[in-house]
Amino acid sequence: MNPAPAPDDVMAIFMHGDNDRQRDALAGSGIEAAAGQAAIAEAADRPADWVMSAIVGAAGLVPGLHALRHGGTLALANKESLVTAGPLLMATAKAHGATILPVDSEHSAVFQVLMGEDKASVERVIITASGGPFRRFTMEQMRTITPSQAVAHPNWAMGQRISIDSASMFNKALELIETREFFGFEPRQIEVIVHPQSIIHAMVGFCDGGIMAHLGPADMRHAIGFALHWPRRGHVPVERLDLARLAALNFEAPDAARFPALRLARAVMETRGLSGAAFNAAKEVALDHFIAGRLPFLAMSEVVEDTLARLSCQNSLQIAATALEDVLAMDHLARKTAAQALEATQ
Amino acid sequence: MNPAPAPDDVMAIFMHGDNDRQRDALAGSGIEAAAGQAAIAEAADRPADWVMSAIVGAAGLVPGLHALRHGGTLALANKESLVTAGPLLMATAKAHGATILPVDSEHSAVFQVLMGEDKASVERVIITASGGPFRRFTMEQMRTITPSQAVAHPNWAMGQRISIDSASMFNKALELIETREFFGFEPRQIEVIVHPQSIIHAMVGFCDGGIMAHLGPADMRHAIGFALHWPRRGHVPVERLDLARLAALNFEAPDAARFPALRLARAVMETRGLSGAAFNAAKEVALDHFIAGRLPFLAMSEVVEDTLARLSCQNSLQIAATALEDVLAMDHLARKTAAQALEATQ
Repeated sequence: MNPAPAPDDVMAIFMHGDNDRQRDALAGSGIEAAAGQAAIAEAADRPADWVMSAIVGAAGLVPGLHALRHGGTLALANKESLVTAGPLLMATAKAHGATILPVDSEHSAVFQVLMGEDKASVERVIITASGGPFRRFTMEQMRTITPSQAVAHPNWAMGQRISIDSASMFNKALELIETREFFGFEPRQIEVIVHPQSIIHAMVGFCDGGIMAHLGPADMRHAIGFALHWPRRGHVPVERLDLARLAALNFEAPDAARFPALRLARAVMETRGLSGAAFNAAKEVALDHFIAGRLPFLAMSEVVEDTLARLSCQNSLQIAATALEDVLAMDHLARKTAAQALEATQ
Repeated sequence: MNPAPAPDDVMAIFMHGDNDRQRDALAGSGIEAAAGQAAIAEAADRPADWVMSAIVGAAGLVPGLHALRHGGTLALANKESLVTAGPLLMATAKAHGATILPVDSEHSAVFQVLMGEDKASVERVIITASGGPFRRFTMEQMRTITPSQAVAHPNWAMGQRISIDSASMFNKALELIETREFFGFEPRQIEVIVHPQSIIHAMVGFCDGGIMAHLGPADMRHAIGFALHWPRRGHVPVERLDLARLAALNFEAPDAARFPALRLARAVMETRGLSGAAFNAAKEVALDHFIAGRLPFLAMSEVVEDTLARLSCQNSLQIAATALEDVLAMDHLARKTAAQALEATQ
């Protein structure tokens, strides 16, 4: 149905931002190159069998919706589009007969486990968290975390923003909401467990007490390769696991006190509506300020919590988005509200 | 297709051996009771939608073949019938449109992982072994192991014979052969790993580098419940895993020097034919002698190896069984040969 595209099927690489060197390197290859948000949206609107969106942040929403309208397969590594507009995205996919394949390793793992299973027999979903670089930090140590400390993830090589989100567990908070929106499980069915080795990506517990887990090296090529080959499996050149060499897989409960993002995610999973858009926008604003050295690490979650509280007072969060404009309006409102919350912390 | 039978569908419990107390307890319940090998074979020959065979040893082969002839589902906890006559059993199931569901926890785990998967994309199967009570014993300590030491399994509550087979890893050897025969994977694709907690029962590695694992408490009700409910999953009242409380899952390579049964199993997996029947018969004879205090623990594998070597010289092992009689004849011959091998060790 959706065979892995041969290289000559790739129509365009669109670079966000200006990158003349890469553009020059592609000259004569037949691969188009362009840059900027409008170019991405335009590219996503071209008919294609298979599109991968690996954009970071709420900026991934519009191209994702465009791609789904053509009824193909959207390999989605942009978790924010499910967080901010899950029901809209899923409804768009359904209306156009499109397929969304999750490319986050945790969600790809859940997706893979559920193949051949009846979702009604699922009791719980457990996504794993590495615990990040501050797993063993005391609350006192966490008060002085700098951006350069936060960017050093123990297992995954990722960009700056997602590495810091991993360190604060805001990334895992987004993934909780993403699990809720993509698979439709109830919040009480979705758990997080800290697993420092990042070998088990997710587990699904069934009503017969059995658990199926997906294991693999911490290498995004696996989830991408799975999405490229789906619905078959094809060879992916990642390292094969040697469990005897790994010797141990460890697990511990996450600490909600030091990582309040997880608690905030629970509230968003319950409220749904526009609360995911508000949560994500406030988080992006807080992250900008942390990176700029204007906000302490732990204050990021305070800003998000305060933003959600302010918007909740206005009864704006529980409204369901019926169109993209609702989501964009909430994104705008939440950024403004987060700025007010930030001022209040100064 | 095969709904879990309600209690009133149970037609008969047949007890092997004499057990008047249980027979009296069933009086008036509508559940028939009978005893002895002929009664088991007769019971297995009655038409039934779902039959479970949990007989220990080669004695399980005939009832299993009888049950398959009625084209229903055979929940198979008797690993020896696959070891001694795998191709015959599988061909009988195919000829009569019957389904075999493995009830050994490792094979149930592999079966569950393979649901919704293409077997052609399987790279390897890893079955786990607890390592048994002698995992940390030196070769010196292993020379003096008594039957009462060998019967004390760290994780599973089982009968005397299978507990000792676990301690010597002959049970894992049987499971390797069972995996080869039931699923049809090549010997080089089938691995064993020591996992002392017995939480992961088996793993399947795919060509994309991902591994799917099945986890559950060390409780046979899970595999039995799965077979009862198949092809759906139904509620099974086993303990739910708490990974944070478990804290660690450990793995180590099995020690082929202290557990030669694994090496012998490899030879059987390569030779196939009647070598499984010979392996199992020789193992049963050696086990009888160990239980009776007439054979040291480590000498069990020497007797099995010697028996296989003697039969191999006669070119008897590689012959494929075309009928039950071939298997029974090899069982008889191997027991006689094992007795000669035993004499040679005295």
